[in-house]
Amino acid sequence: MNGSIIRYILGQVLKIEGILMLLPCLVGLIYGEKEGGTFLIVGVLCFGIGLGTTIVKPKSQVFYLKEGCVATALSWIVMSFFGCLPFYLSRQIPSFTDALFETISGFTTTGASILSDVESLARCMNFWRCFTHWIGGMGVLVFLLAVVPLSGGSHINLMRAESPGPSVGKLVPKIKHTARILYIIYIGMTILQMVLLLLGGMPLFDAVNIAFGTAGTGGFAIKNDGLSGYSGYLQWVVTVFMILFGVNFNAYYLILFHKFKKALVIEEIRYYFIIILAAVSYITYSLCQTAFQFADALRHAAFQVGSIITTTGFSTVNFDMWSESCKTVLVLLMFVGACAGSTGGGIKVSRFVLLIKTVGKELNSYIHPKSIKKIKIDGKPIEHEVVRSTNVYFITFMILFVASVFLVSLEGNDLITNFTAVAATINNIGPGLALVGPAENFGFFSNFSKYVLMFDMLAGRLELFPLLIFFHPSVWKEALYQKRRERR
Amino acid sequence: MNGSIIRYILGQVLKIEGILMLLPCLVGLIYGEKEGGTFLIVGVLCFGIGLGTTIVKPKSQVFYLKEGCVATALSWIVMSFFGCLPFYLSRQIPSFTDALFETISGFTTTGASILSDVESLARCMNFWRCFTHWIGGMGVLVFLLAVVPLSGGSHINLMRAESPGPSVGKLVPKIKHTARILYIIYIGMTILQMVLLLLGGMPLFDAVNIAFGTAGTGGFAIKNDGLSGYSGYLQWVVTVFMILFGVNFNAYYLILFHKFKKALVIEEIRYYFIIILAAVSYITYSLCQTAFQFADALRHAAFQVGSIITTTGFSTVNFDMWSESCKTVLVLLMFVGACAGSTGGGIKVSRFVLLIKTVGKELNSYIHPKSIKKIKIDGKPIEHEVVRSTNVYFITFMILFVASVFLVSLEGNDLITNFTAVAATINNIGPGLALVGPAENFGFFSNFSKYVLMFDMLAGRLELFPLLIFFHPSVWKEALYQKRRERR
Repeated sequence: MNGSIIRYILGQVLKIEGILMLLPCLVGLIYGEKEGGTFLIVGVLCFGIGLGTTIVKPKSQVFYLKEGCVATALSWIVMSFFGCLPFYLSRQIPSFTDALFETISGFTTTGASILSDVESLARCMNFWRCFTHWIGGMGVLVFLLAVVPLSGGSHINLMRAESPGPSVGKLVPKIKHTARILYIIYIGMTILQMVLLLLGGMPLFDAVNIAFGTAGTGGFAIKNDGLSGYSGYLQWVVTVFMILFGVNFNAYYLILFHKFKKALVIEEIRYYFIIILAAVSYITYSLCQTAFQFADALRHAAFQVGSIITTTGFSTVNFDMWSESCKTVLVLLMFVGACAGSTGGGIKVSRFVLLIKTVGKELNSYIHPKSIKKIKIDGKPIEHEVVRSTNVYFITFMILFVASVFLVSLEGNDLITNFTAVAATINNIGPGLALVGPAENFGFFSNFSKYVLMFDMLAGRLELFPLLIFFHPSVWKEALYQKRRERR
Repeated sequence: MNGSIIRYILGQVLKIEGILMLLPCLVGLIYGEKEGGTFLIVGVLCFGIGLGTTIVKPKSQVFYLKEGCVATALSWIVMSFFGCLPFYLSRQIPSFTDALFETISGFTTTGASILSDVESLARCMNFWRCFTHWIGGMGVLVFLLAVVPLSGGSHINLMRAESPGPSVGKLVPKIKHTARILYIIYIGMTILQMVLLLLGGMPLFDAVNIAFGTAGTGGFAIKNDGLSGYSGYLQWVVTVFMILFGVNFNAYYLILFHKFKKALVIEEIRYYFIIILAAVSYITYSLCQTAFQFADALRHAAFQVGSIITTTGFSTVNFDMWSESCKTVLVLLMFVGACAGSTGGGIKVSRFVLLIKTVGKELNSYIHPKSIKKIKIDGKPIEHEVVRSTNVYFITFMILFVASVFLVSLEGNDLITNFTAVAATINNIGPGLALVGPAENFGFFSNFSKYVLMFDMLAGRLELFPLLIFFHPSVWKEALYQKRRERR
């Protein structure tokens, strides 16, 4: 394993984090909060360590998928560790585990909080919470690829390990340019949303934070009642942008370069909107049967469906009080997730399309044993390898899911709480049902359960394999063996 | 499609069912119940129709996997339809849907009942309920293959469609002899259990019915309080036999022919016992923490674990009152299921072993991209096709599961009820949790939900594909097209 390149990447990530921490520090200055100082301290610490580890250039820049996975997993863990220090050192979140949970929940764009009263936090702290969503949404390594010159080596492996979806494509031949284009679209859309929110009369501080949370499909609220206090217009703006940030960014790239036709044929996006439409219709209908007016029902249904399928996790209403069938629809959407290549989490629409087509092909092979049909998406035949790895992804997901539910259940809470807590973290959503419903928080869990859920959040955000590889005994054995050999 | 062979097989199945109905009729005679008469009427009807449709021999005995699937699905539907008539005609179960539900639950060895008071049923009716378990356990088509001379054609397709497990092997070259050996083992073990129950002082009627329910891994009780009224010895006998009937029957065949070594290396069986041991240990420990004595805790834990993993569904205690982690363990076991080639349901231990090895292989391919390791079971490399179809099986299972939970949730019951009701039917177990817990029944569901659950029971018993093929539009289109062409 090429350890020196991993060290180098980690250092670069820390440098970036250090610089990024100046922003919440600035927010602290503006609002005259003394807590802002901790960001300066931790930021300087990060930058210093980063600088120290990147002075010596790596011996070799070559690295494979394994190094990509390990570097990604380590980056996210290290980033979360330093990211939680401001919460902890300022005593705004007195427990280290809680601070780490909140930070991992932020970076992984989950939005599950351990706080029962977010309004009591300093503004710079709330800004950092929401900013972690924005950083984690598009990915810090993608950012790294966009700004740091890394020559040689297959850096697509780094992007592949961090970016969501069954197959990561390059938009343009150069990975660096791809990363830059992605970030330009990301920043542009975030600013557009901020402007639209400000036009609707939202205070600047709220607009910035909500836009960060929406763009990263995160979901940390800065008000105790979520987004229910904002006007209908503002809620609709958030709804639309949540759904837009759940779309495969390839589509925006194509639209940007006037390739509308190509953008329109992307099958995944079509299914994504069909699922949203179906879910919104059903829930609107269902809510109208109860006390809701049509306009309110539609707004709440669209907001909640958009929030859950894109795995954002904002809420305008306590959907834990909705009918069982509506809740079931939402739980199903939790697993579906957004499009691949978006900032959203979950299993991803394209994987489900592929899985369902796999089943269809299997049935077909029973009926017409001699027919050899390839599975097609967007009119193109899908490589056997992609089908296989999607199947394995799904199976791995289910095994990790089930194991987590069991581990969390040891604490003795009810099944719905355990089930939806794991679903909400592994899919990077935020709120679940029952004890982790939108009006509740994750603070009551034991430290053990919190670490299980943290693992799930990271595993979900990095799409399982990087984290599993990182914790795989044979990787550690190899690293240890290498170290010993080097000493001789 | 070869329609004439399907007609012929259906006729044979009806003839067998007609003859089998004489047994409950005899029970009615012995106990002087007038309800016994309905079995005679329906039995004669079955036999008559069967005779009528089998007089003309099929034009061609050739049939493929498609015909195997359609014949199997149709056989089970027709068999269930006629099997429910005695309940319905005798007004012992006044609703047709309920009668059909109870019968499908019987044949598929599910054991989910719509009855709140089984003790009020006539004895011949209770006998028929338990006898359907026994018939469905090993499979009526396997029985057919054992007794009816079918020449030519690949009848392995019939067995493959009805028998559980990812790959159905022939014990001996001739399929007929394989089927006979299986039935001989099945009958022998059932009788052995009856004798052991009688020795423990169980009344004959109870011993026969409980043995039928155990052998088929069914789970219909003939007492309102399940098996909790019987002595510890009797409960232990049932526990041991439940677990034995969940073992791959290949092992018994090998033991019978003194190939002990070969029987011992079957990996699936090893894992099956390891899972049982782990689950029993955990639940025993957990129960001891509460009010239970060690001996009672062990007995209840072993009974319930055996009952759930083999998908029998008997209960000695209302496990819905156990701790959340114990319930979670039981819910997980619901999906694991028994060994392939046993009478149990669920996804099967061998499939899980294969799935976990697939994930292991995937992780390995990330770490060592150049290594080409084949997945091995019992020391033999597994064909790629088996791995693929197991993956697809799991995916199909999950899709059907999720769709069913959604459909059942439309009724408005809580998520736990919906989730475990589907889990308990698709895995052919019987009781779930909450409203379908071991102390409750399925009677309260709407007819719509009952039909969804009936579909799940059949799909689970026939391992999904036969039923899905049967309901596949293209099969119907083809049959219709063929009919039209024949008319010309």
